[in-house]
Amino acid sequence: MDFENPFLGIISDFKGRRACYRHDWVSAFCSGFRILAPTTYIFFASALPVIAFGEQLSRDSVDTLASTAICGVIHSIIGGQPMLIVGVAEPTIIMYTYLYHFSIERPELGKELYLAWTSWVCLWTAAMLVFLAIFNAATIINRFTRIAGELFGMLITVLFLQEAIKGGVSEFSIPKGENPKDEKNQFQWLYTNGLLAVIFSFGVLFTSLKTRNARSWRYGTGWLRSFIADYGVPLMVICWTALSYCIPGKVISGVPRRLVCPLLWERASIYHWTVLKDMGRVPVLYIFASIIPALMIAGLYFFDHSVASQMAQQKEFNLKKPSAYHYDVLVLGITTLICGILGLPPSNGVLPQSPMHTKSLAVLSKQMIRKKMVKSAKEGMKQQASQSEVYGRMEAVFIELDASPARDSADKELKSLKEAVMKDDDGENGKEKFDPEKHIDAYLPVRVNEQRMSNLLQSILVGLAMFIVPVLRMIPTSVLWGYFAYMAIDSLPGCQFWERTLLLFITPNRRYKVLESVHASYLESVPFSAILSFTVFQIIYFLVCFGVTWIPLAGILFPVPFFVLIGIRQYILPKFFQPEHLQELDAAEYEEIIGTPRKVSLQEGESTTGGEGEDDDDFHDAEVLDEMTTSRGELKLRSRSYKEERPHQVHPQDPKTG
Amino acid sequence: MDFENPFLGIISDFKGRRACYRHDWVSAFCSGFRILAPTTYIFFASALPVIAFGEQLSRDSVDTLASTAICGVIHSIIGGQPMLIVGVAEPTIIMYTYLYHFSIERPELGKELYLAWTSWVCLWTAAMLVFLAIFNAATIINRFTRIAGELFGMLITVLFLQEAIKGGVSEFSIPKGENPKDEKNQFQWLYTNGLLAVIFSFGVLFTSLKTRNARSWRYGTGWLRSFIADYGVPLMVICWTALSYCIPGKVISGVPRRLVCPLLWERASIYHWTVLKDMGRVPVLYIFASIIPALMIAGLYFFDHSVASQMAQQKEFNLKKPSAYHYDVLVLGITTLICGILGLPPSNGVLPQSPMHTKSLAVLSKQMIRKKMVKSAKEGMKQQASQSEVYGRMEAVFIELDASPARDSADKELKSLKEAVMKDDDGENGKEKFDPEKHIDAYLPVRVNEQRMSNLLQSILVGLAMFIVPVLRMIPTSVLWGYFAYMAIDSLPGCQFWERTLLLFITPNRRYKVLESVHASYLESVPFSAILSFTVFQIIYFLVCFGVTWIPLAGILFPVPFFVLIGIRQYILPKFFQPEHLQELDAAEYEEIIGTPRKVSLQEGESTTGGEGEDDDDFHDAEVLDEMTTSRGELKLRSRSYKEERPHQVHPQDPKTG
Repeated sequence: MDFENPFLGIISDFKGRRACYRHDWVSAFCSGFRILAPTTYIFFASALPVIAFGEQLSRDSVDTLASTAICGVIHSIIGGQPMLIVGVAEPTIIMYTYLYHFSIERPELGKELYLAWTSWVCLWTAAMLVFLAIFNAATIINRFTRIAGELFGMLITVLFLQEAIKGGVSEFSIPKGENPKDEKNQFQWLYTNGLLAVIFSFGVLFTSLKTRNARSWRYGTGWLRSFIADYGVPLMVICWTALSYCIPGKVISGVPRRLVCPLLWERASIYHWTVLKDMGRVPVLYIFASIIPALMIAGLYFFDHSVASQMAQQKEFNLKKPSAYHYDVLVLGITTLICGILGLPPSNGVLPQSPMHTKSLAVLSKQMIRKKMVKSAKEGMKQQASQSEVYGRMEAVFIELDASPARDSADKELKSLKEAVMKDDDGENGKEKFDPEKHIDAYLPVRVNEQRMSNLLQSILVGLAMFIVPVLRMIPTSVLWGYFAYMAIDSLPGCQFWERTLLLFITPNRRYKVLESVHASYLESVPFSAILSFTVFQIIYFLVCFGVTWIPLAGILFPVPFFVLIGIRQYILPKFFQPEHLQELDAAEYEEIIGTPRKVSLQEGESTTGGEGEDDDDFHDAEVLDEMTTSRGELKLRSRSYKEERPHQVHPQDPKTG
Repeated sequence: MDFENPFLGIISDFKGRRACYRHDWVSAFCSGFRILAPTTYIFFASALPVIAFGEQLSRDSVDTLASTAICGVIHSIIGGQPMLIVGVAEPTIIMYTYLYHFSIERPELGKELYLAWTSWVCLWTAAMLVFLAIFNAATIINRFTRIAGELFGMLITVLFLQEAIKGGVSEFSIPKGENPKDEKNQFQWLYTNGLLAVIFSFGVLFTSLKTRNARSWRYGTGWLRSFIADYGVPLMVICWTALSYCIPGKVISGVPRRLVCPLLWERASIYHWTVLKDMGRVPVLYIFASIIPALMIAGLYFFDHSVASQMAQQKEFNLKKPSAYHYDVLVLGITTLICGILGLPPSNGVLPQSPMHTKSLAVLSKQMIRKKMVKSAKEGMKQQASQSEVYGRMEAVFIELDASPARDSADKELKSLKEAVMKDDDGENGKEKFDPEKHIDAYLPVRVNEQRMSNLLQSILVGLAMFIVPVLRMIPTSVLWGYFAYMAIDSLPGCQFWERTLLLFITPNRRYKVLESVHASYLESVPFSAILSFTVFQIIYFLVCFGVTWIPLAGILFPVPFFVLIGIRQYILPKFFQPEHLQELDAAEYEEIIGTPRKVSLQEGESTTGGEGEDDDDFHDAEVLDEMTTSRGELKLRSRSYKEERPHQVHPQDPKTG
């Protein structure tokens, strides 16, 4: 934190983004209707969790949708980094749940003043965030290394799973506040409801997980696979909801249970506009007591918001416009204040929607630029232009479409492309002939369409979703539990903490299997004993953090261990681990290495004097035989291709073209 | 068929097997208790389907278990090929179902004389089989190429699936013959039963499929993985059965539905001993009418039995003892006659249990021989014996344990091992030093423990299973449906017909993905148009065969299209396909080629003038980005290992050993 230069960060961020503010809007119009694809993609990715959290928090998704919409619109218009998506996230829900339980147990507050009290919390939080922004606190986010980020992510994962399991189990019992004498609460229908819930939630979970990799499927056209990969999850939610209406008519209404979401006009919604008045009724003691949760929330938000922004601006995305971390924290403070006054749960930067947003705009941009460059190059080649002319044409198109402020860098970016085109001048016959279709892909750098329209449009769509509450009420609650489980499980691959934990379950003799496929680079550079200690430390620390969330009142302090962890990482861990190992295990970047086959060598692995090694060889035989046998019992003969000089694929030629 | 030399095949088979008969029993005792592992493995693999078929046929698994046990014992004692496992198979069930429906609709037969009439069918079948054996018909099984075998396998698969689906749907309705006024048949409990059935059957299906590849799992010890891979399916059946008892006590008994299997002493089992008397009461017309189904069954059995025997003796298994196809058909005729007289459905050779049996004995044998060879080699090396002495010791152990009649071939088999040992004499320092542990594996040929004990023991166990009917009655019927679905789906991978059908759903641009992984060799040698026509022909023919099974009465003639197919393959297909293509597509052996990466070349694939190609490149970008992104939104950096000269895996050395 920099106390000597207040406002410095905010001012420089503001100036930097103001310079490209006009372009942010103009470049959106250049894309035309194509901007709707990333918009709808992010809309579904944002809206679904927000609806789920709303149901979880207060059985009222309208609040969370409203908050996401309002904060999203504000951020897209006056925010710093337009790639950043904001929304109501799980930490907010957890915090608000603690606040709720705290408040209803206190007669001075009770359910009546709960919203007013949370408004005070938001007020303090906003003040703290503004304070952090003014004093350039965002410079310390580099200290939030992978170890803290992944631990937090794992905690959220486990909490999601906990929610899913609690929800699933609750389907077998009478919901709170309902009449036990109702027919639908008699054992038989209750049990039927529970069984249907099991079927729907597992159905949503498995089918959603399957759609994630649709792009790499073998089957189906490109368009179909892309569609399923992008919209698979909302599609599955819709499918299973539709399926829940295909049950026999004899089944009583109320089974299966569906979302309870008051209609917009049914709600005591006027109440939100009166929260401001009620804030004065909160006892002074509680006004000051709300500083503690505010501290937690401010810290969490600061961290979450900045990391989400960081992830949306990874250097591989090649963003041209400047970042605005300090300014965005200021905007976050403003939106938190507004939410507090309106009695809504605040929104902050969310993962993984923010990098998803950038990614979807990267593909979009590349498509457009590529199409035009190819077209112009081909025209040039048709006219038998010289190599330098062809390159010149492509460069002109690139500059025109790219239209980023830093024009002179176009030449640097296209340097490798230029070399590829010019190389042909050496007159090598045919082998390396420049083909626009194929070569442009290889040399075109990633380009992201940085604009504000997609963010604004998706926030507006989220707002409109508030008006389709009758549709939302058709969704069975079990579909929601399945969705929570999906969110939990989908976040695990790619979490190095998780992968290292799994590694502990692999016997030493089998570790070669990990090295055979794509694996993280630390597996080769760090000895296993160090990996083991580091992982065990993380597991124990994680269990401590998870345990804290179970403490009834003090559970609100659950972010504290994370802040402590940053100190531990800085000062204590280097005493136990070698610096280069720590750097690998806690690397900022995710480095992978392609797998290589195992070589049976004499120096490798464990001692060769029998015992485990011998038994494993026995099992190895059976494993190899297994692999070579079809289900019918037939043994397969495996070989390399018999075609000569075949480093790459060969297709047999059809007689007519052959 | 060889009409000029009747009994020739039978006699030569008999002589060949008689020579090794004593060894068949003696070598079993050499293995000691280790023979129990393959025994129990095959027992579960045999008994489960037989129980399922029994329930399917007549809700009485005792008949099918009895038949499997009796025929199995007879075959293991007097049969030709002891690797061949016999049991009641699906074609028998299908046939008997037709016979049953035929018989109950005829007042002259009715339910009373049904068993007697099937006994006549069995009599004719036995006579035909003996006839085929005498006249050396087994020489024509080479004409049963892959096309017929896989078509038949696919038909069985689809019929299993049909059974599973019919069964699952029936769980939602009142079973035939039950009282609709029963409480458990009221809508609510019926629906609950149906929902539980859905959960259990899908549960069994998915968990069983998961256990199949347990040997290649990364996690867990070798023993655990092996155990799960071998016994996973019966284990899942047991687990889900146990789970079905964990439902709340308030659920009425009878939900979920369980196997209905009369206890051994409850049955009208005396009836089986009186079938012989009833055979005389069947009208003469029907005695002669039973020739038609007998023709079908004889043809099917001849085919099935011989192909199962063939698969159990694939040349990769390196079996030393002679085959006995003709003689085994004779034994089959005898066992069919016995079953007919006892009123039991006959058994015949089954897939995939027969090659599974050989495979499990191969691993067993290799383990034993290897252990002893390693031990003796190490002793030799400790005593610093010369290379030739070390080799001599190993050879001695091999010969002693192998003890096959063809002793002089040991030297030929161990030739490569000898070279490896002797090579050390050239004095190359250390690099290729002979290490018994590692090198023996590479050079030891597959050895199968050919004996009769495992077959006899597993047949006895199947017989004993008849006495645990009270336990069988605990299995829910939905677990059975899941098991049928599992049997269907598990047989698909490795079926080239299925794989070619799937290929039709891959767009031309994506075919490179198939070539990137291990793929069948015909993909490289046969043009796609030929593959397409062949596969479409197979699909149409398959639909015809499947359609035949739906015809109410004439459905019993469903094997006829298969026999016709053999003629079509011989005479008609060569007119439409080039001989080398036909040979590849209809190859006797299953040849695979290891995958290679795709090379983006300029001559490859479709025209490059936009359209599909261009769009696919757009999708390709998104696909690559997908692959490089974690679920958190982070982009991964992928590279090759930075270690120099690294064609194989490298493990970082721990500091103490390093």
